[in-house]
Amino acid sequence: MYTFFVRLNLVLVLVFMTLISPGQNKIVVFQSDFGLKDGAVSAMKGVAMGVSPELKLFDLTHEIPAYNIWEAAYRLQQTVPYWPAGTVFVSVVDPGVGTERKSVVLKTGTGQYIVTPDNGTLTLIAESLGIAEIRQIDEVINRRKDSQQSYTFHGRDVYAYTGARLAAGVIDFDQVGPVLPKQVVAIPYQKATLEGKKIKGTIAILDVQYGNIWTNIPGDLFQQLHPAFGESLHVALYHGGVRVYEGDMPYSATFGAVPVGKPLAYLNSLLQLSFALNQDSFAAVYKIGSGNDWSVEVSSK
Amino acid sequence: MYTFFVRLNLVLVLVFMTLISPGQNKIVVFQSDFGLKDGAVSAMKGVAMGVSPELKLFDLTHEIPAYNIWEAAYRLQQTVPYWPAGTVFVSVVDPGVGTERKSVVLKTGTGQYIVTPDNGTLTLIAESLGIAEIRQIDEVINRRKDSQQSYTFHGRDVYAYTGARLAAGVIDFDQVGPVLPKQVVAIPYQKATLEGKKIKGTIAILDVQYGNIWTNIPGDLFQQLHPAFGESLHVALYHGGVRVYEGDMPYSATFGAVPVGKPLAYLNSLLQLSFALNQDSFAAVYKIGSGNDWSVEVSSK
Amino acid sequence: MYTFFVRLNLVLVLVFMTLISPGQNKIVVFQSDFGLKDGAVSAMKGVAMGVSPELKLFDLTHEIPAYNIWEAAYRLQQTVPYWPAGTVFVSVVDPGVGTERKSVVLKTGTGQYIVTPDNGTLTLIAESLGIAEIRQIDEVINRRKDSQQSYTFHGRDVYAYTGARLAAGVIDFDQVGPVLPKQVVAIPYQKATLEGKKIKGTIAILDVQYGNIWTNIPGDLFQQLHPAFGESLHVALYHGGVRVYEGDMPYSATFGAVPVGKPLAYLNSLLQLSFALNQDSFAAVYKIGSGNDWSVEVSSK
Repeated sequence: MYTFFVRLNLVLVLVFMTLISPGQNKIVVFQSDFGLKDGAVSAMKGVAMGVSPELKLFDLTHEIPAYNIWEAAYRLQQTVPYWPAGTVFVSVVDPGVGTERKSVVLKTGTGQYIVTPDNGTLTLIAESLGIAEIRQIDEVINRRKDSQQSYTFHGRDVYAYTGARLAAGVIDFDQVGPVLPKQVVAIPYQKATLEGKKIKGTIAILDVQYGNIWTNIPGDLFQQLHPAFGESLHVALYHGGVRVYEGDMPYSATFGAVPVGKPLAYLNSLLQLSFALNQDSFAAVYKIGSGNDWSVEVSSK
Repeated sequence: MYTFFVRLNLVLVLVFMTLISPGQNKIVVFQSDFGLKDGAVSAMKGVAMGVSPELKLFDLTHEIPAYNIWEAAYRLQQTVPYWPAGTVFVSVVDPGVGTERKSVVLKTGTGQYIVTPDNGTLTLIAESLGIAEIRQIDEVINRRKDSQQSYTFHGRDVYAYTGARLAAGVIDFDQVGPVLPKQVVAIPYQKATLEGKKIKGTIAILDVQYGNIWTNIPGDLFQQLHPAFGESLHVALYHGGVRVYEGDMPYSATFGAVPVGKPLAYLNSLLQLSFALNQDSFAAVYKIGSGNDWSVEVSSK
Repeated sequence: MYTFFVRLNLVLVLVFMTLISPGQNKIVVFQSDFGLKDGAVSAMKGVAMGVSPELKLFDLTHEIPAYNIWEAAYRLQQTVPYWPAGTVFVSVVDPGVGTERKSVVLKTGTGQYIVTPDNGTLTLIAESLGIAEIRQIDEVINRRKDSQQSYTFHGRDVYAYTGARLAAGVIDFDQVGPVLPKQVVAIPYQKATLEGKKIKGTIAILDVQYGNIWTNIPGDLFQQLHPAFGESLHVALYHGGVRVYEGDMPYSATFGAVPVGKPLAYLNSLLQLSFALNQDSFAAVYKIGSGNDWSVEVSSK
C-alpha cells in the first residue's frame, strides 16, 4: 500500500507538471506599430494559438507611431518590469524588415524575454534591466512552416512564431539560435546631469493620453535638489536649443494639489520627473514635443 | 481497498478544487481613461499576472474621455450585468488620484465586484444592480510591494493589484478592508418623468461609434405612451433649454424599417429610448451632445 | 492491484478529458464595427464567459468602418487561415440587424467556424477556404435567455452567445440549426486577369496603418510576367476609369531595397501584389482609395 501511494503521488505530480509549465510561463505580450484596424495582430495571435492553445496572449500596445523605434524602446521600459519572470515579449517595429538587421531574443537580468529585430528597440531595457543573455534567431529552424515566400511579415512568420514556441516550452532559450555578445543596437540619447544647482535632461516622451511631459530625469537625481512637496521649481523647456516654455510650478505629490489648469511637477509612475497641468494638456497648451532635440532645465528657486 | 478509493477520491477532489476557484471566478475586466497608446494598461495587467497566472484578463474600454467619471459610470452600467457573478471589474478614471477620495470595492446585488475610486463612478451601477456590500481598500495591506514612492498610478499599484488578488482568491472580500455604509458618491442627474402625454428625460450618452442618441428614458416608462411599431413620435431635443432639434419619426423595431438616412426611434440594447438615422450619424448631422444639460421631450402624435 | 491501476488510469483519463475539449477548441475570435470606445464588445465577451469560463477570447478588429461589409470580408480572409481548426469567429457588421437577412454559421474547408449575418461578410472566405457546411442559426433555441425584447444587438444576444456555446462544446455544429445549400450572399467584385503582357485588377483594400496599396492580383498570376527582384514595373491606378497615378517602380523583396520615400512593388503578407513608399504613405501622398471602382494595370517594362 505504501508503494502504491508513492506511485499515486508520482502520477499526480505528473498531472500537475502538465498543468504548470517549467521555466517560461506561457505568457506572451505583443507590441507593434500595426494599429488595430486590420488583421495583422490577429494573424500573429492565431499563429501563437496554433503553437499552443495553452498560451495566454496580451497586448502592450499596437499604436506605436509607424517606424518609431525609440517609442517602442520606451514602452518596453515602461512595462516589462511589471510582468513576471518568464514572460515573453514580441515587439515588432521593424522598418528594416527583410534587410540585414538581426532578429534576436534578449533575456533580461530579471528573467523576461524580448523577441524583436535588434534595431534600437532594446536600447533602454538592456540598460535598465540588464542583459542575462542574447541570442540570434536561427530563421531556418524558427520560422513558420511554408512562410519562405513571404518577405514582409516577420512579425507573424518569425517573431510571433518563435515567441510562442519559447513561451510554450516547445523550444528552450538555447534552441532560439547562437549566443551573441552582450550588446544591442542602441539609439544614442542624452542622459540627465546635475550641473551645480541645475538639472539638465531631455523630454523622453509624452504621456500622450493626458498631454503630460515626461523627462528622462530620474527621481534619484532629482532628490539631489532636496525638493520638498509644495516647494516651487523653475522649469525651462527648449526645442533645438530655443526656449519654448519657462515658468515656476510646485513639486507636488498629487495633481489635485494645484487648481484645475495650473502646472505642477511630479514624479511619474516610473519615478521620473514630469510636468503637467491639472486636468489639462501641458503638451497641447504649450505645443511641446519629445525626443533628443527637446531639452529641459530644472532648478530650485 | 475501499479506504483507498475514499482517499483517492479525496485527492482527486483536491486536484479539482485547485483548478476550480471558489467564490470569485478568476475573471478581471479593466476600464480606464488611459487609452491604448502607451504601457499603462499593460503595466496593470502585468501586476495582475504576477498575482496569479490563472487569472483571465479582459477590457471593458480604455477610451473613456480623460477624467469623464459620468461616462465611466455609464459604461459599467452598460456592461456589468452581462458578466457572471464573481467577475471583478477594475475601473480607473481617477482625476483625484492621491487626494482624499476613498478607494473601494463594491459588491453588486448580482455578485460582481467593482474596484474603483469612489468618485461618482458607482452612481449608476449602485442604483441599477444594488449594493450587496461596500468596503474601503486598506492600502497599507492591499498595495503592491515597494510602490509607496509612486503617488500617481493607483490603477497599477492599488486597484489592479487588489482586484487581481480578490479575483484569484488570494484575499477574500472581507480582507479588502473595513465595511462602509451602503452608499456611494453619486453624480446628480435628472431622471425621466411622464408629464401628461409627454415624457421628459436627458440624453444620457451618445452611441459614439454610430452617432445614435441614447436617452435615459427606460422602455417601461416609454410603454406608458402605448406606442406601436410604425407609429410616429414627436421628438424635441434641447441644449441648455434651447431647442436644437424637433421632428417626427416612427418607433421601429429595426433600423432597416426606415430608408437609409431617415430618422427612427427605437429601444437600444439596454432597452432605453434612442434615436438614430439609418446608416448615418444623428449626432453629427444635428450636432447633438450628451449630459445633464441635454434634454429630450417625446410624445405620441 | 492491477485492476486498481486500470481504474486509476481511467479516472485520470477522465480528469484529462475534462481539461481538454473535444472537437471545437474553446477559442473565440470577435470582429465588429463597434469600435472600442463603449461597452458593446465587453458585453459580448461577458455573455461568452457566462457560457463557459474556459473559453479563450480574442479580437480580430472592432475598427471595421461602420456598415462596411466588404472590409469585414477582407479582414476574415486576411486572418482566419492563421488560426487553428476549430476556432470560432464571431463577425458582427450588421447594418440589416433585425431584418430578414439570415444568421448563419459557416464551417470552412479548413475547419474554422464563422458566426455572422449572411450579408456578404462570407464573400471571400467561402471562396478561398471553401465551405465544408453552412447552417442557419435557429434563433428560438440559440438566443440568450430573456433577450427577446432587444431587437438591435444580435451581436450580443445571438452571435456571441451561439459562438460561445459552439466553441465550448455546449452545442455541436448540427445543433446550430438546419443545413443550408453551400452558397453565401456574395458581394460582386472584379477578379484580376492577365491580358497579353498586362495584368488588370482592383485595389482590394488599403493597408491602413502604413498607407500601402493592396491589389487583388495574386502572386501566382503576377509570376506570369516573370518578374525578377529589382526589375522595373509600370503601374497605373484608376478611379472610376480616370487615371490618378502612373509610374515605374522596382519589384522588391523588402521595403529597404529602395530609398526612404521611393515607391516599390512587392508581394504582401497574403502574397498579393502591393505598392508602397518606403516609410511613407502611398495612399496619402497620391490620394488613393480602395474598392471596386479603383482599378490597377501592371506590366513589365
